[in-house]
Amino acid sequence: MLQAALRSGVASRRAVFEVFARHLPDGRRYGVVVGTGRLLEALRDFRFGEEELAFLRDNQVVDARTLDFLSGYRFSGDLYGYREGECYFPGSPIVTVEGTFAEAVLLETVILSILNHDCAIAGAASRMVHAAGSRPLIEMGSRRTHEMAAVAAARAAYVCGFASTSNLMAGHAYGVPTAGTAAHAFTLLHDSEEEAFQAQIDSLGAGTTLLVDTYDVAEAVRTGVELAGPDLGAVRLDSGDLAEVAHAVRKQLDALGAHKTRIIVTSDLDEYTIAALAAAPVDGYGVGTSLVTGSGAPTAALVYKLVAREDAEGVMRPVAKKSVGKPSRGGRKHAFRRLDASGTASAELVTVSGDRPADSRPLQAELVRGGEIVGWEELDAARERHRQAVAELPSTARQLARGYEAIPTVFDR
Amino acid sequence: MLQAALRSGVASRRAVFEVFARHLPDGRRYGVVVGTGRLLEALRDFRFGEEELAFLRDNQVVDARTLDFLSGYRFSGDLYGYREGECYFPGSPIVTVEGTFAEAVLLETVILSILNHDCAIAGAASRMVHAAGSRPLIEMGSRRTHEMAAVAAARAAYVCGFASTSNLMAGHAYGVPTAGTAAHAFTLLHDSEEEAFQAQIDSLGAGTTLLVDTYDVAEAVRTGVELAGPDLGAVRLDSGDLAEVAHAVRKQLDALGAHKTRIIVTSDLDEYTIAALAAAPVDGYGVGTSLVTGSGAPTAALVYKLVAREDAEGVMRPVAKKSVGKPSRGGRKHAFRRLDASGTASAELVTVSGDRPADSRPLQAELVRGGEIVGWEELDAARERHRQAVAELPSTARQLARGYEAIPTVFDR
Repeated sequence: MLQAALRSGVASRRAVFEVFARHLPDGRRYGVVVGTGRLLEALRDFRFGEEELAFLRDNQVVDARTLDFLSGYRFSGDLYGYREGECYFPGSPIVTVEGTFAEAVLLETVILSILNHDCAIAGAASRMVHAAGSRPLIEMGSRRTHEMAAVAAARAAYVCGFASTSNLMAGHAYGVPTAGTAAHAFTLLHDSEEEAFQAQIDSLGAGTTLLVDTYDVAEAVRTGVELAGPDLGAVRLDSGDLAEVAHAVRKQLDALGAHKTRIIVTSDLDEYTIAALAAAPVDGYGVGTSLVTGSGAPTAALVYKLVAREDAEGVMRPVAKKSVGKPSRGGRKHAFRRLDASGTASAELVTVSGDRPADSRPLQAELVRGGEIVGWEELDAARERHRQAVAELPSTARQLARGYEAIPTVFDR
Repeated sequence: MLQAALRSGVASRRAVFEVFARHLPDGRRYGVVVGTGRLLEALRDFRFGEEELAFLRDNQVVDARTLDFLSGYRFSGDLYGYREGECYFPGSPIVTVEGTFAEAVLLETVILSILNHDCAIAGAASRMVHAAGSRPLIEMGSRRTHEMAAVAAARAAYVCGFASTSNLMAGHAYGVPTAGTAAHAFTLLHDSEEEAFQAQIDSLGAGTTLLVDTYDVAEAVRTGVELAGPDLGAVRLDSGDLAEVAHAVRKQLDALGAHKTRIIVTSDLDEYTIAALAAAPVDGYGVGTSLVTGSGAPTAALVYKLVAREDAEGVMRPVAKKSVGKPSRGGRKHAFRRLDASGTASAELVTVSGDRPADSRPLQAELVRGGEIVGWEELDAARERHRQAVAELPSTARQLARGYEAIPTVFDR
């Protein structure tokens, strides 16, 4: 596309691309924007080096003129977008890219890859956080997804309210708090469970979390409290009927005087099984597979569409395809969330006019101006924004049951 | 775990970890091993640099002794595994890691991340290839998954028989053939569809693939053939009832004398919709979302379990946890595929003895010996192996309908 557009002379036309979702994952009531920070990092680093150019040249992927363009590539346009942690709905213009066609079209894959992944994880994480109530969640899914996706997943989970991650790289790269527990292999490595627990307590102190279901749970709990005393930090349950076992373990811990020892549960948890444990004496959840796979929705179905471009006279024109069954709306959009008198969201307003409607707050912020990043922010700001954005939605948004969008998207044309 | 094991003195015990699946994705009849090559690359590069060590030190993640161990870390053990492209079944020991506990336990996350991702994509890709018969498949899912997962997904799809990918990085990094088509944005950028097509043909020749559903398909096909002549390479359909539209377009192309112009279809295809188009005049498929999300199974559920380790006397002992509902089998396993007289697979034999059973072929190969990689191979070797491995399975394996494992896994204990 770039090569042909350079040749036909339209590559330098001003263009506007929008990122939006035609629909939410099946049955979800809101989407969550995460990935903006990663996107800005990727944009900053988006260059074609000698190695990449050599590949394209040697394999005759593009012609000399295109290689020349790519060798000097640096995005010089503007980006606007929903801030990280914000909620979105079908049609919300999550990111708007303005630049020449040539420079903007090259960003499609990197922008969509980042947002489709991170928003998918975030959509699931946010529901899990709500299901867990005040109990902390540990992200433990690294082993179940691509090694780099794992780092991004841990970051997304933290934005949505997870307390920590077992992915140390996410701690290193993004400052996500890290936590971990021992695996069954650690117990099996030692000649007895007692030796394993003693080794762990010697090294990490009585406040550590002991995994108690390698052999017999009741025996392991007794051994753990005997060795660590009533200050044992926590025990982890990773199998069986977690509610039933948690009740039994709580009773046993209390009988042993370990009233403060917490019970952490893991074992293929998702938002539904987390919610089902609400009445069980559980103090925290470790979540893996279902988090990193978006709990049934591993991609967010976001698309990147040209909505306006310059014509031969230099006038910006809205454009939209007419493909069957894939509605598109031309024109650069602006977005606002309408709030009722109590401050509860009542509609997503997507307008071409850009005028701010009454009783609404604007949703787009400037992220990049003339190629310079102006939208950096701390991850904790995104985390706090997400907390507020979900709280602002009507209560139906927080129902776990499958349903429809919590608020309607209203277009002005 | 590492810190506590170093302190208790058991970190240096010889240990054997196995990677296996407790079950296949729901309804699948075989699994596909992909990721071995990426795993060997990752193992080669698995070191703790100053930056990583500083993070661990500054955040007091581990103690000084552990930092010292990590700073000199280099895997010095052995790896055995199924070769890339091979099929697997529940319980198949896909990878076996032998080394000290300390050096082997550190590899859990990287090994599982790579294999859980790549095998998940491969399991779906293999079925799509079978569904497509002799028609080529183009991998086009990069925008729907994490930016680095996208590269690995393109690689996995190629091993399973996809013809090409739109991911140029996969071409650069792994030599996967690359291909691409224009998007609707390219047509919309121009003042008319005719101008867009002309620009594309001028730049890429008459053999290019024109996207014909931006406005009106019949008009676009007529315009395309008028401009490119009967040598127009292909048209792409991305919306509507693909079978119906393909029939109409084939008729129109033939009437225009463009008998050799191919019809490529895209639009959220998966193995089922590919199969449903078998009778339609379609010449190739572009597959995106469903490929990169494993078509409903985005992770392969592979686990990494300690199955044997040295005891205090230096004798290797099989070990297994007894957790409820998660069966584990102790002891280092060997694997063979039993073949009947016609060469068709009839069982997966997983034995602790290691003796090769009659009428079987061994499934494990040496990948790493004493820390040195000995199992490198070309990607095309994996691709050819996969073709043979699927052909060797009983025909039930290739049914698209949900079902059970194509062959049983038989354990000797």
